[in-house]
Amino acid sequence: MSKFRVGIAGATGYIGSEFMRLCATHPHFEIAWVTSESSAGRKVHELFPNLRGYVRDEFRTFEPELLGECDAVGLCLPHGGAMELMATAVEKHPKVKVVDCSGDFRTSEFDLWERFYERKHTAREIQPKFVYGLTEFNREKVKKAQYVSNPGCFATSIQLVLAPFAKHGQLSGDIHVSAITGSSGSGNKPAQTTHHPERAQNVRAYKVLEHQHLVEIVPFMHSLNAKNDFDLFFVPQSGPFVRGIFATVFMPLNEKLTMASVDALVREAYGDEWFVQMVPGTPEMRLVLHTNHAQVSYRASGSTLVGMCAIDNLVKGGAGQAVQNLNLMLGLEETAGLMHPGGYV
Amino acid sequence: MSKFRVGIAGATGYIGSEFMRLCATHPHFEIAWVTSESSAGRKVHELFPNLRGYVRDEFRTFEPELLGECDAVGLCLPHGGAMELMATAVEKHPKVKVVDCSGDFRTSEFDLWERFYERKHTAREIQPKFVYGLTEFNREKVKKAQYVSNPGCFATSIQLVLAPFAKHGQLSGDIHVSAITGSSGSGNKPAQTTHHPERAQNVRAYKVLEHQHLVEIVPFMHSLNAKNDFDLFFVPQSGPFVRGIFATVFMPLNEKLTMASVDALVREAYGDEWFVQMVPGTPEMRLVLHTNHAQVSYRASGSTLVGMCAIDNLVKGGAGQAVQNLNLMLGLEETAGLMHPGGYV
Amino acid sequence: MSKFRVGIAGATGYIGSEFMRLCATHPHFEIAWVTSESSAGRKVHELFPNLRGYVRDEFRTFEPELLGECDAVGLCLPHGGAMELMATAVEKHPKVKVVDCSGDFRTSEFDLWERFYERKHTAREIQPKFVYGLTEFNREKVKKAQYVSNPGCFATSIQLVLAPFAKHGQLSGDIHVSAITGSSGSGNKPAQTTHHPERAQNVRAYKVLEHQHLVEIVPFMHSLNAKNDFDLFFVPQSGPFVRGIFATVFMPLNEKLTMASVDALVREAYGDEWFVQMVPGTPEMRLVLHTNHAQVSYRASGSTLVGMCAIDNLVKGGAGQAVQNLNLMLGLEETAGLMHPGGYV
Amino acid sequence: MSKFRVGIAGATGYIGSEFMRLCATHPHFEIAWVTSESSAGRKVHELFPNLRGYVRDEFRTFEPELLGECDAVGLCLPHGGAMELMATAVEKHPKVKVVDCSGDFRTSEFDLWERFYERKHTAREIQPKFVYGLTEFNREKVKKAQYVSNPGCFATSIQLVLAPFAKHGQLSGDIHVSAITGSSGSGNKPAQTTHHPERAQNVRAYKVLEHQHLVEIVPFMHSLNAKNDFDLFFVPQSGPFVRGIFATVFMPLNEKLTMASVDALVREAYGDEWFVQMVPGTPEMRLVLHTNHAQVSYRASGSTLVGMCAIDNLVKGGAGQAVQNLNLMLGLEETAGLMHPGGYV
Repeated sequence: MSKFRVGIAGATGYIGSEFMRLCATHPHFEIAWVTSESSAGRKVHELFPNLRGYVRDEFRTFEPELLGECDAVGLCLPHGGAMELMATAVEKHPKVKVVDCSGDFRTSEFDLWERFYERKHTAREIQPKFVYGLTEFNREKVKKAQYVSNPGCFATSIQLVLAPFAKHGQLSGDIHVSAITGSSGSGNKPAQTTHHPERAQNVRAYKVLEHQHLVEIVPFMHSLNAKNDFDLFFVPQSGPFVRGIFATVFMPLNEKLTMASVDALVREAYGDEWFVQMVPGTPEMRLVLHTNHAQVSYRASGSTLVGMCAIDNLVKGGAGQAVQNLNLMLGLEETAGLMHPGGYV
Repeated sequence: MSKFRVGIAGATGYIGSEFMRLCATHPHFEIAWVTSESSAGRKVHELFPNLRGYVRDEFRTFEPELLGECDAVGLCLPHGGAMELMATAVEKHPKVKVVDCSGDFRTSEFDLWERFYERKHTAREIQPKFVYGLTEFNREKVKKAQYVSNPGCFATSIQLVLAPFAKHGQLSGDIHVSAITGSSGSGNKPAQTTHHPERAQNVRAYKVLEHQHLVEIVPFMHSLNAKNDFDLFFVPQSGPFVRGIFATVFMPLNEKLTMASVDALVREAYGDEWFVQMVPGTPEMRLVLHTNHAQVSYRASGSTLVGMCAIDNLVKGGAGQAVQNLNLMLGLEETAGLMHPGGYV
Repeated sequence: MSKFRVGIAGATGYIGSEFMRLCATHPHFEIAWVTSESSAGRKVHELFPNLRGYVRDEFRTFEPELLGECDAVGLCLPHGGAMELMATAVEKHPKVKVVDCSGDFRTSEFDLWERFYERKHTAREIQPKFVYGLTEFNREKVKKAQYVSNPGCFATSIQLVLAPFAKHGQLSGDIHVSAITGSSGSGNKPAQTTHHPERAQNVRAYKVLEHQHLVEIVPFMHSLNAKNDFDLFFVPQSGPFVRGIFATVFMPLNEKLTMASVDALVREAYGDEWFVQMVPGTPEMRLVLHTNHAQVSYRASGSTLVGMCAIDNLVKGGAGQAVQNLNLMLGLEETAGLMHPGGYV
Repeated sequence: MSKFRVGIAGATGYIGSEFMRLCATHPHFEIAWVTSESSAGRKVHELFPNLRGYVRDEFRTFEPELLGECDAVGLCLPHGGAMELMATAVEKHPKVKVVDCSGDFRTSEFDLWERFYERKHTAREIQPKFVYGLTEFNREKVKKAQYVSNPGCFATSIQLVLAPFAKHGQLSGDIHVSAITGSSGSGNKPAQTTHHPERAQNVRAYKVLEHQHLVEIVPFMHSLNAKNDFDLFFVPQSGPFVRGIFATVFMPLNEKLTMASVDALVREAYGDEWFVQMVPGTPEMRLVLHTNHAQVSYRASGSTLVGMCAIDNLVKGGAGQAVQNLNLMLGLEETAGLMHPGGYV
């Protein structure tokens, strides 16, 4: 079986470098090209010595012709970059499949999007061609999609808690989310909040009740079932670790969502899933690091249901889920290239 | 001015060692004695080289006569130990002041207490003599108290968020709390969940909706104002750091608690406080480490108020607040011996 | 091609769990059985949820008959355990290949061994059948070996610096080594020195000038070339991280080892190696974590040559090198099952 | 007793902020002014919320007249800045005492200095007025000094190991040093090597055999005794922690420095010192964090003596030792304002 040729645009970010890493050992992928505007002309392994011997390419400047040399493209560009590339180049190569890891195409609620992302959405007409790639809850559409918009890292962890109930229209009332993420979520550019002396012993919140991932969660939950009727309050937090997200979600239990239904719905959603594991007690973040697995756990008491989820923000919350989606889009086993168990420590 | 003589029972735990550290440099305290059943006969600095030169005592076995040699006692015993000591010894020395850092005397709801602490409460008749030492909200009673029960670490952080509203009877509905703590909260005895390889890159929850600090929070909030009418749902989490707690509290906004009232009530509660700082945006946990300070921050949106608090679990959540209480009980400046700003990193 | 059946004895330690993890995704291995005296009867994934779905076995009590059901065995037992198992069981199954990760068979200098390991060596007659498995410097013997003794983690990192020169008999004078290791090197049993609050912000030395890995390094270096004539002074250190070793080795430059020869000898040793990478400037420990790669770097000035090496103590310093050796013993590609690039972060 | 008025120039760096912190609670100091070119006009507590309530000043632009308003100045400027300030302003205020935390005045070997610091030394004529402030070994000169040059952080840790022998001219041959430092040593400006995702799990070396602190160590050791005759080879390393240095020093034992003399010389040097503690086994870095204490330990075997030292790079290796020196220069108790025991965790 010949391999699918995958191009990666914007490959010098953390998501991009994970994407390269996963493609490099994927049994059915080969890297067609990798682009970086800032590092064009340099060997991948000069910037990413961890890939020495595994990725022999050098970074190139993006040129539309590259699209003719590949079957699929992973877009790992900063927000805004994907819109531009889609509009100016990709649309002209109608056979290329695309998975976009930016926030550009995750919702059609453009006004909201523009407010949260603080920029103009310049590719509104292309957005409808994108399928939202929360794989476990949109698998059939992803299989047929030409373009997939990969969910945000926080959005993945939160929706993996909510979606088993959202599918059945059981979300209601005020939902409260506290989720803590590692520093790799802030990208590879040094900043004061990721300066080691100031991060390594800190916990802090940011964008309190205003994180842009709300823009994708709410519409997708509604799309699963129009009966969902809820508000989402989200406090993102920065933790003193590199990889991983741990999300804690408080949902009201009531006549819509009852204690009796919780187990059955979770089991229905995840009983047959490979990447999402139901665990007793609590997810353990460290056990999913470097993997595409998520752990979820639920506990109800009185009028409240608590759901928790742990993922690796760069894998299930980024490049791993992107590969999972690409596998489906290309007719491969969903798990291809992602069968990497994490370490116990 | 002669110094008050302070005895410390159970001084080999982390709270006990912080208590010694704070007493050692307190301008008005001198250590009368320190006890440890397991380390009796050993010099303090053999076990705690950080105190070499600062504490010259050796650990002794507790004997009731020790109570005659001191003005005040800090009890840093495991849960259950304080009950026993109070009943068998302290009560016979009517002049000794006591601050107890265990959970033994934090509530008079004994049935609940016995369920959460999984042991029999054997000193029910002594409990009413204890004042609950959340200093900022019980200052006048603490000043007159002979016995003070020091709040739990999580309980301190959560109540510092809730109490400005609880004072005015404005707590209502379901309150959701997610709080993450460092490993020092688990004490000095090695265990699997504090084994470095398994803790250093992990986030996990425990005692989900069942943490014993609920037993003290709910009654104390009600004691502030009987009109409070709420349920508390708390998910404690273990984080990959040594000291500190970051608590995120979601409260319903409604006709009782309105967005308009939030600022005024917080300002009323903390505007004149030295140890509790209102900060914009977010508390930063690292800025309160090794100090008796707390940072609080609030933000409201729609039907939800989020309050956050950061403390050092061993200081404001332990030995520091105990010293703060002792200062008041002994007629000293509340800040005596606690004027240690933390490092910026 | 049918798979080789591999048994793992003592699989609940960190080396054992890594061994399972690597076997689980190895293209030519299947796990025949895993043993644990303490956890017999329990599913692997109950203890190691990271392996859920990847390893479906349950832990068994070791029985000699198990040796009839496998082609090769990985011994991941505590020191002393391998001796016993070899003597009582393995020797009776003359076709089984063995890689032993303990210190039991790393040297024939038994008196020294007994002094450092503080126990009696009870399998002296079996030891000569073992080949020392520092793969890059003993490859041909490993290929023909039935039994391989896998080097210690520190010993691997230090010897990867020394061996390019030792091969040519160029080690002389006093060699000084400072190497720092993560907490996973201390195993999975909680202890005070690996208690998170006491480890997470500490650096300390231990077994100063007395670490047992000296017992294997010195003889193996001499075995590479009898002209080596040196003393080794080693200060092992514990660092506040989970995985990894960074070794700094100071060697005298003189007429035996000259600045001119350094580059050429290193290039000769590692120019064609897949797992050992020569890097400019400095090794970066994080870039080899979770991989079987080592990074080495050298710099000379005046009378001193400094060589540095970074490895993952559980992989190249443990289960990874064991699999590398097993591959050779079984006639496979040396890299089979080990082509896992690490993350950039 | 009226307080000495201390000005701090360049107070927004990590050393500067520690200097403010120590002055804020010093019983005999009051802050006269703090300067920052970049943050002039802002309140100290806006940038350093940890000092809220403790330091009420605002940052000012440096003006020569400020020197008339203080008894002493702490210079916490980047390398080069102190030279300029001394030449243009300080020299004109002959009564002001100065402790300089930069490298500008640590040596009179200007050619070497210029090579390592990669800049021109423009205040050669002022340098001789500076006393090198390794307090324990230059105490009498410091007491009489008007200007003190505070040692570098690595230089402090390394010299605390060497100096007990250097005093007696017993350093000889090749001395090898491996020392690892926390990220705060790199200052408060974000960079790739202190970017949390890339630092938090890494160990790496830098400036191998070329660190600028050599420029101060070698001359000062010779100044203690001209019979010292040695070369120093130093490999600085970056570790995954915020504060602290752990130095490992290998010295040749021979007829000059004998095993028999080690204990006696160390005891002579440190037996009466408050800030330097001789410890058995190993220093523990965590036990000196946030304090002005150093721990040293030695062990000899065969032809090698190993000495180890742990300090807090920002305190004993920075602002703390500066205050220790200022105390002496101002006729105060050496320990004034520095009696802060560290935490056990």
